[in-house]
Amino acid sequence: MKKLLVTGFEPFGEDKINPTQVLINALKEEKFECTQIYLEVLPVSFKKVNKFLKELFDKIKPDYAIHLGLAGGRSGISIERVAVNIMDARIPDNDNFQPIDEPIIEDGPSAYFSTLPVKEVLYELRNKGIPTVISNSAGLYVCNEVMYLSLYYSDKLGYPAKTGFIHVPYFPEQVVQKFSDLGQNLPSMSFDLQLKAVQFIIKKTLEKH
Amino acid sequence: MKKLLVTGFEPFGEDKINPTQVLINALKEEKFECTQIYLEVLPVSFKKVNKFLKELFDKIKPDYAIHLGLAGGRSGISIERVAVNIMDARIPDNDNFQPIDEPIIEDGPSAYFSTLPVKEVLYELRNKGIPTVISNSAGLYVCNEVMYLSLYYSDKLGYPAKTGFIHVPYFPEQVVQKFSDLGQNLPSMSFDLQLKAVQFIIKKTLEKH
Amino acid sequence: MKKLLVTGFEPFGEDKINPTQVLINALKEEKFECTQIYLEVLPVSFKKVNKFLKELFDKIKPDYAIHLGLAGGRSGISIERVAVNIMDARIPDNDNFQPIDEPIIEDGPSAYFSTLPVKEVLYELRNKGIPTVISNSAGLYVCNEVMYLSLYYSDKLGYPAKTGFIHVPYFPEQVVQKFSDLGQNLPSMSFDLQLKAVQFIIKKTLEKH
Amino acid sequence: MKKLLVTGFEPFGEDKINPTQVLINALKEEKFECTQIYLEVLPVSFKKVNKFLKELFDKIKPDYAIHLGLAGGRSGISIERVAVNIMDARIPDNDNFQPIDEPIIEDGPSAYFSTLPVKEVLYELRNKGIPTVISNSAGLYVCNEVMYLSLYYSDKLGYPAKTGFIHVPYFPEQVVQKFSDLGQNLPSMSFDLQLKAVQFIIKKTLEKH
Repeated sequence: MKKLLVTGFEPFGEDKINPTQVLINALKEEKFECTQIYLEVLPVSFKKVNKFLKELFDKIKPDYAIHLGLAGGRSGISIERVAVNIMDARIPDNDNFQPIDEPIIEDGPSAYFSTLPVKEVLYELRNKGIPTVISNSAGLYVCNEVMYLSLYYSDKLGYPAKTGFIHVPYFPEQVVQKFSDLGQNLPSMSFDLQLKAVQFIIKKTLEKH
Repeated sequence: MKKLLVTGFEPFGEDKINPTQVLINALKEEKFECTQIYLEVLPVSFKKVNKFLKELFDKIKPDYAIHLGLAGGRSGISIERVAVNIMDARIPDNDNFQPIDEPIIEDGPSAYFSTLPVKEVLYELRNKGIPTVISNSAGLYVCNEVMYLSLYYSDKLGYPAKTGFIHVPYFPEQVVQKFSDLGQNLPSMSFDLQLKAVQFIIKKTLEKH
Repeated sequence: MKKLLVTGFEPFGEDKINPTQVLINALKEEKFECTQIYLEVLPVSFKKVNKFLKELFDKIKPDYAIHLGLAGGRSGISIERVAVNIMDARIPDNDNFQPIDEPIIEDGPSAYFSTLPVKEVLYELRNKGIPTVISNSAGLYVCNEVMYLSLYYSDKLGYPAKTGFIHVPYFPEQVVQKFSDLGQNLPSMSFDLQLKAVQFIIKKTLEKH
Repeated sequence: MKKLLVTGFEPFGEDKINPTQVLINALKEEKFECTQIYLEVLPVSFKKVNKFLKELFDKIKPDYAIHLGLAGGRSGISIERVAVNIMDARIPDNDNFQPIDEPIIEDGPSAYFSTLPVKEVLYELRNKGIPTVISNSAGLYVCNEVMYLSLYYSDKLGYPAKTGFIHVPYFPEQVVQKFSDLGQNLPSMSFDLQLKAVQFIIKKTLEKH
């Protein structure tokens, strides 16, 4: 039976909840055929997350990993295409650490491309009526770090065999007091649609391989 | 028993569906205590909509009217505060008529303020976790015309006693091929949340009077 | 000889400079044919500005008034079309007064339309390569109040005979530390282009009458 | 004497002018101390630009290269941090070629980081009052290709020793008929300020090495 790891993050910055943590909890209710699913919430910590992830991978040896993170301010699902070997934090992480222009892995490759079926997932989600784009930057915060590390371990250790990162928008209830410079609420996406998106991404990932 | 009229619009411009038409259909399944509810879909026609609305009002003599329209590109519910006595259309209406700088009512007042409990509705929706703002312009298209006419007839005829206009965002499935200038999908709001918003607006309107 | 009053505002909120104050200073160097030009910087005070404006009008009895204000976050020149009889302040004014849903003039008309040649100015500015839109809301802060009062006194006293309001964007140097929710700088317009815009607006206003 | 190559692009897509071509022309009037400056306008052609660039580099053997491109819709100067080894074009290039998910260099590294003094340039421009951000994606069009190729040749051939890419916004006159989804003009930056920015970038690059 194939093993799939799906991760979210704990809240960070000024936000009290992180939609990806809520999604991970919701996925505990789900069953996926012929697949053993592992669900984890990662710390928003540049330093801790590497060890955390490495131990998870060594324990589980997942065939697939799908990492979820929050990208507040975006309107739809963002399928990340590439992770780069740099950390440059706009705000401190949850351990109050704020790396500036540091590599994630000394002498690691400059970047890794997602090994998820990025375009197939894009078309699938759009066909299902879910606003989605491919993003060419996962930022330089812990999200990009996790994506980079997951692809790095995939490259070096062989597991997870396929991996990638998905950014999700705020939930509607998170933006009632968040406004754009033109006085509009920041964009959001409902829990139901986010969950549906993640389910389709999992399904498409399992199907393709 | 109090009489409440809720209206939406048919699709217009390049959009094949109008969320407000879908909402009006969904409201047919709803019951509101001690209230007779009337549901109508208005033509997106500067010329026809006046007669259409006037006949509705004369027939129903509603106590309240809540008019719904689509404001594509906005992220949340917009409670309109004011309607102005001018039509200035960026695109032709569904009868291919495009008025430029014409009054809605010759010698009518320059503007009317919504007589719905605008601020109470704002707080209610935000408390319920629904992204909402008060908007100070309903545009100069058929939406603003309907809001103006409804307040004009309220002023002149006494019915609807209380009336106002609510703009809603696109549904998610409408924006999968609509992008901002920075390559993001346009913002959207789910059908479920839009319906919930309209139900709260109706409830709050009935409560306040 | 025709008399033209042009006003700007002092800084407010968190901004240390107000582009319109800088523009008013720059206009002191300018000459306009056959026109006596009066230049004033208004207080950002809901209460003081009425008396200030009334005394100016009584003293000067201007034929035209063009009022300038800052609309941070907008990308181009906004020619305001309409002022509404309400004050509803998102932040306190410079006297720490924050009116909520109060009329500007008790029993005044609900709104006034600009009596500047709005569309002609729009086309002129666009032809000159200056990003410009017509705006249907001047907000509900001191800007809208000044526009309303100017049109109100025009209506009641006959002077200024023609008047209206223009919103301008931030200067570039003001947005180096102001960012949109997607991490872009807020939009801005250079002093040179703003000054050129104001000169064209003055010229077109004088020409049309 | 140090040799510096600065490149722009010809217009592409629906735009009749490309600000970077105009900037390259303007730089012909400039002198920079102790530096031989070479100015070139590149074809917007995925296929031609590689040969074009390689021949330029072989002929000039530049110490520094600064490549300029248009990023319509952005508000300020974008200093690109990273180029990735992929072409994925949203619109065809000027030779009507539209690569989808193809590598720029078969077996090339996944990405290269700019070797310009990215952060120093950022602080310099902001200190000078010029809206600027560091961008983590140069897109996947010919701009990213040129940045990648320039860093690739730098890596393989040793020239240009230092290189990077700068995206500039539209000029104001380009956006008079371009509007955001909320009806605002797209953001822009004046020619004067763009030229000033490029001059500072050149100066800082020369200073740092």
